[in-house]
Amino acid sequence: MSDNYLIGLDYGSESARGVLIDTVSGRQIASHTHAYRHGIMTRQLAGGTLLPHGWALQNAADYLEAAEIILGKLGRGRRVASIGVGFTASSPLPATRTGIALSRLQPDNPHAYVKLWKHGAAQQYADAINARGGAFLAHFGGRLSGEWLLAKAVQIATESPATWKATDKFIESGDWLVWQLTGNEVRSLGFAAYKAQYLDGEGYPDGILPDLDSRLTAPKRIGSPAGSLTEAWRKKTGIEGSAVVAVAVIDSHVVLPAIGAVKTGSLVGALGTSAAYLLLSEQYQPLPEGIEGVARDGSIRDLWCYEAGQASFGDTLSWFVKQFPRADTPSESFRLYNHEAASYYPDKNPLVALDWWNGNRVPLADSRLSGMLVGIGMDTTATAIYRTLMESLCFGARSIVELFEAGKIEIDRVLMTSGLAQNNPLLVQIMADVMDRPIDVPALDNPTAVGAAIHGAVAGGVVADYHEGAARFGARGYRQYKPDKTQAAAYAPLYRIYRNMAASTDVRRAMHSLRSADV
Amino acid sequence: MSDNYLIGLDYGSESARGVLIDTVSGRQIASHTHAYRHGIMTRQLAGGTLLPHGWALQNAADYLEAAEIILGKLGRGRRVASIGVGFTASSPLPATRTGIALSRLQPDNPHAYVKLWKHGAAQQYADAINARGGAFLAHFGGRLSGEWLLAKAVQIATESPATWKATDKFIESGDWLVWQLTGNEVRSLGFAAYKAQYLDGEGYPDGILPDLDSRLTAPKRIGSPAGSLTEAWRKKTGIEGSAVVAVAVIDSHVVLPAIGAVKTGSLVGALGTSAAYLLLSEQYQPLPEGIEGVARDGSIRDLWCYEAGQASFGDTLSWFVKQFPRADTPSESFRLYNHEAASYYPDKNPLVALDWWNGNRVPLADSRLSGMLVGIGMDTTATAIYRTLMESLCFGARSIVELFEAGKIEIDRVLMTSGLAQNNPLLVQIMADVMDRPIDVPALDNPTAVGAAIHGAVAGGVVADYHEGAARFGARGYRQYKPDKTQAAAYAPLYRIYRNMAASTDVRRAMHSLRSADV
Repeated sequence: MSDNYLIGLDYGSESARGVLIDTVSGRQIASHTHAYRHGIMTRQLAGGTLLPHGWALQNAADYLEAAEIILGKLGRGRRVASIGVGFTASSPLPATRTGIALSRLQPDNPHAYVKLWKHGAAQQYADAINARGGAFLAHFGGRLSGEWLLAKAVQIATESPATWKATDKFIESGDWLVWQLTGNEVRSLGFAAYKAQYLDGEGYPDGILPDLDSRLTAPKRIGSPAGSLTEAWRKKTGIEGSAVVAVAVIDSHVVLPAIGAVKTGSLVGALGTSAAYLLLSEQYQPLPEGIEGVARDGSIRDLWCYEAGQASFGDTLSWFVKQFPRADTPSESFRLYNHEAASYYPDKNPLVALDWWNGNRVPLADSRLSGMLVGIGMDTTATAIYRTLMESLCFGARSIVELFEAGKIEIDRVLMTSGLAQNNPLLVQIMADVMDRPIDVPALDNPTAVGAAIHGAVAGGVVADYHEGAARFGARGYRQYKPDKTQAAAYAPLYRIYRNMAASTDVRRAMHSLRSADV
Repeated sequence: MSDNYLIGLDYGSESARGVLIDTVSGRQIASHTHAYRHGIMTRQLAGGTLLPHGWALQNAADYLEAAEIILGKLGRGRRVASIGVGFTASSPLPATRTGIALSRLQPDNPHAYVKLWKHGAAQQYADAINARGGAFLAHFGGRLSGEWLLAKAVQIATESPATWKATDKFIESGDWLVWQLTGNEVRSLGFAAYKAQYLDGEGYPDGILPDLDSRLTAPKRIGSPAGSLTEAWRKKTGIEGSAVVAVAVIDSHVVLPAIGAVKTGSLVGALGTSAAYLLLSEQYQPLPEGIEGVARDGSIRDLWCYEAGQASFGDTLSWFVKQFPRADTPSESFRLYNHEAASYYPDKNPLVALDWWNGNRVPLADSRLSGMLVGIGMDTTATAIYRTLMESLCFGARSIVELFEAGKIEIDRVLMTSGLAQNNPLLVQIMADVMDRPIDVPALDNPTAVGAAIHGAVAGGVVADYHEGAARFGARGYRQYKPDKTQAAAYAPLYRIYRNMAASTDVRRAMHSLRSADV
C-alpha cells in the first residue's frame, strides 16, 4: 500500500495552516488553519508579567497545539509520505538539552519565551555587533538586524544571564518544531544561513558570545529529511505511512517551488504581514550594501538566493484598519477602503509615507526607525492616507528592486505571492505601476503551505527534485498585472520624495530620539 | 428715552454670532448664531464652476443674510446704542465703487468672491513680493503671508486681469460689511496695518501693483465710529436708537477688552479654528524675525499689539474627528477622544507631529508647508495620534512664545480664549504643561462677540475707554490652569524633536515638492 498524501505546514505570525495534497492528482484536498492560543504577546505574559516596549513573544506550546490539531484533522487514518514545515524567522527560543521549551519551566520569565521575528528590543545588541564589525558581515549586507537570532541571543545573555545559563539550546522555532515531531534536532541551513549568519565551511560567526556554538548546531541543506514522525505524534494525530519530516524552511522562502520560482532570475515578493523579497541566481555576486543575506541551498537547491524584506507590510494596512475602522469587521473595512482608494490617483494625492511601522529592514536594518506621514492638509481624507500607506509599501519594494539592480543581479520575472497578492488586486496594480514592471500572481490556494509540502516531497523522495515538485504540485496558472504608463509616470516624483525622506538624517535622528530612553 | 443695548457681531469662518448686552447690568441677555448659507467653498462655486486646489472662497451675500437675521433677532424693537463687528481676516473681496460685491455681478467667476483668510493659492505671489524685498517688510516679520490682502490682490491682477479691472475697491469683508450697514466706506486700522501692511504716516506699500492705492482707502483707528445704521437696515431689522457702528476689528483681536486684556504684558491666545497670539506692550521693539506684525491703535488704543498665529488649530482636531469618527456626532467623537487622550502621558507617546495642516504662519509664513506625523508604529493608537495633534498645537504655541521672548517683549500673563480654551480643558492643561506657565481662561460666554460690543461701546461713546468697557461688560472671573512640573519635564525632549523637524530643510523641501505643480 503506497503513501498517497503530502502534508505541508505553514507557521505564520498569528496562526498555523496545513494543507493535504493527493500525490496522484497533485491537488490539495483539504486545509485547516489554527490560531495560536496566546497570539503575539506584546504587553504581558499570560500570568500577568508586563513586557517592556518593543517586545513581541510567543508561547512554543501554542505551536505544538496547532500541530496536533492540524495534523490530526488532515492526516488521521491516512498514509502520509512526507511533511514539510515553513516557519516565521528569526523566532528563536531557549530550550533544554532534551528540547523542553524554557517557557514551560519558567512561565513568568519573559526571556524564556520565543522572541518572535518582530520583537524589536534586541536592536541595541545588533548595533553593538555592527559597531564592532567582522568579516562575516560582508555576507549579510554589512549589518546584522535586531530581528535576527544572534542579537536575540546577546539580549538574553546580557539582560538575564540566569536564563542564558539555563539555555542548553538556542533554536529557531521551526527547527524546534521539527525536533518535537521527529525526536531529532536537525536544523535547517535556511535558518542558519539567513538568520544566524552561518557560512558553509566556516560555521557560525565567532566572538558574539562565549559558548554560543554549543547552543547551536550545524544545519542541513533544505530538502533534507530530519526523520520520521515519532510514535507519540502518530498516536496523537492518527497519521500512518512513512511520514518523513523535512528540515524546516523560512516561511517566506518555503513558497518558492509552489509558485514555479525554481529558476535563475526569478524575483519573488512574499507579501504577508511583513514582506520578503527573494531573488534566485545561478551566480554569486558580492552583496549590495543593505541586502540582508545570500545563501546557496538555503531556499532552493543549487541556486543562490538573495534575501531582502520590509519589516511591516500587510501589518501596516491592518494597523490602519484596526485604528480607523469603517465597519464592524476588519474585512468589511478593508473592502470599503480599497473600494474608495481605487479611485484616488497619485497626482491627486500629494502625501507621502515612510513605511517603517516596524522599523526598516532593508537597507538600514534599524528597528528604531518608525512610520512617518508628510503632506497632511485639511483636505486629506482617511482614504487618501490608506492609499498613501499602500503606495509607501510599494515604494519600499521598489527601492529593494533598485538595490538588487545596482548590485548587477539580473531580474527576469517578478512574482508576488502570499495573502495580499491574492486578496488585494489594487495593491498589486499599484506595485506594478510603481515598479513599472509586469507582475505575475500565481493562481494557487495556500501557496506557502503547498511549498512546504513540496519541500517535504523532496525530503521524502516523492519527487526527484524541486523542478518536479513544482510541476506536479505547484501553481498551474498566473494572473498578470501590467503597469499603466501614465500612473507609472505620476509616481516618479512621489517616489523621489520617498527616497529623499528615507535618506534624510534629520528624519532618522528624530526617529531615534523618539525611540530613545529619554523620551 | 436712552439707548439701553449694545450689539456685538462676531463673523467667523463658518458662521456669525451676535450678542445683545444690557448696558445697565452689563450682562448678555441674548445671543444668536447663523451659519453661512454657502459655507467655505473649496471645491466649486454654487453654479458648479470647479476651484483649483488650495482655494477657499466665501459669498459676501451670506454675510448680509447673517446680519439681517442676527440683528433682527437681537435688536427688533430695541433701542441700540452701538454695534461692533469682529471679522475674519484677511478675507478681502472685490467690489464696485458703490460697494456691490463683484460676485453678485459675476457669479461664475471664482476671482469675484471673498478670498477667505485660509485661501492658500496666493502664496506664490507673496513669495514673489518677499523675493523682491522692501523696507516695509521689516514691520511684518520680514515676510508677507500668502493669506494677506496684498498677495490676494496680486493673484487676481495676475490670473484674471479683467476681474481686477472691474474691481473699484478691494476691501476686507469686515470693512465691506460696515460699509453696507452704514453706507460709509470707513476702513479699520486693524485690517489695514496687520493685513495690508499700512504704516501710519506712510500709507500702503508702494510697488505692489499699479493703481492699488485707488482700490484701498486710508483707515481709522479702532474704536472709531463709521456711522449709524442706515434706514434700510433699520427697516429690515427693526432696530431703533442711535445704533452707531464701529469700524470693524480683526476677529482674533476683537476679544481683548472682553477678557480684560487691556494692559501691557498680556499675551492672549485666541484658540479657534486657527490660533492668534496677541501681545500688548507700551513699548515698540523691532519685530523678531517671523512675528507677523505690530501696530498701535489697531487692537487696543494707545498700546502696541504684536501679532502671531498658527494657520490651523481647532481645524486640525476637527479634521481628525471628521476623518476618523468614533461616534455619530463630532461632539460625541471629541468627547470620546478627549476622554481617552487624558490618560495618555507624554513619556508614553513617542510620536511627534508638525501642526502645519494649513501651512505655517509663524515664523515661516509659508502655506505650502503641510502636516506631518513621525514615530508611528504598530502600537500607535488613534487616540495617541489625536493627543499628538493636541501636543503639536501646543508646541507651535510655545515656539511663538519663545519668539516673543527672544525679541525681548515682556510677557506678564498668559490668557487663552475662544472655543477650544472654553471647551477643551485637556488642551489648555497640555498648553500650560508644554509652556510651563500658568494660563488664565476667562469665564465669559461669547467673548469675541462681547469684545465686538465693547468696541462698539467705545465708538458710540457709551464708555470713555477700553478700560471702562472691559470693567463694565467684560469677564468677571478666570479659571487658572497651573503647569504640572513632571509633565513639563516630559515634554522637553518631544519639543526639541518638534523644533528639529520644523527646522529641517529636508522636511520643508519634501513638503514643497508635494505642493508643487509636478506632483
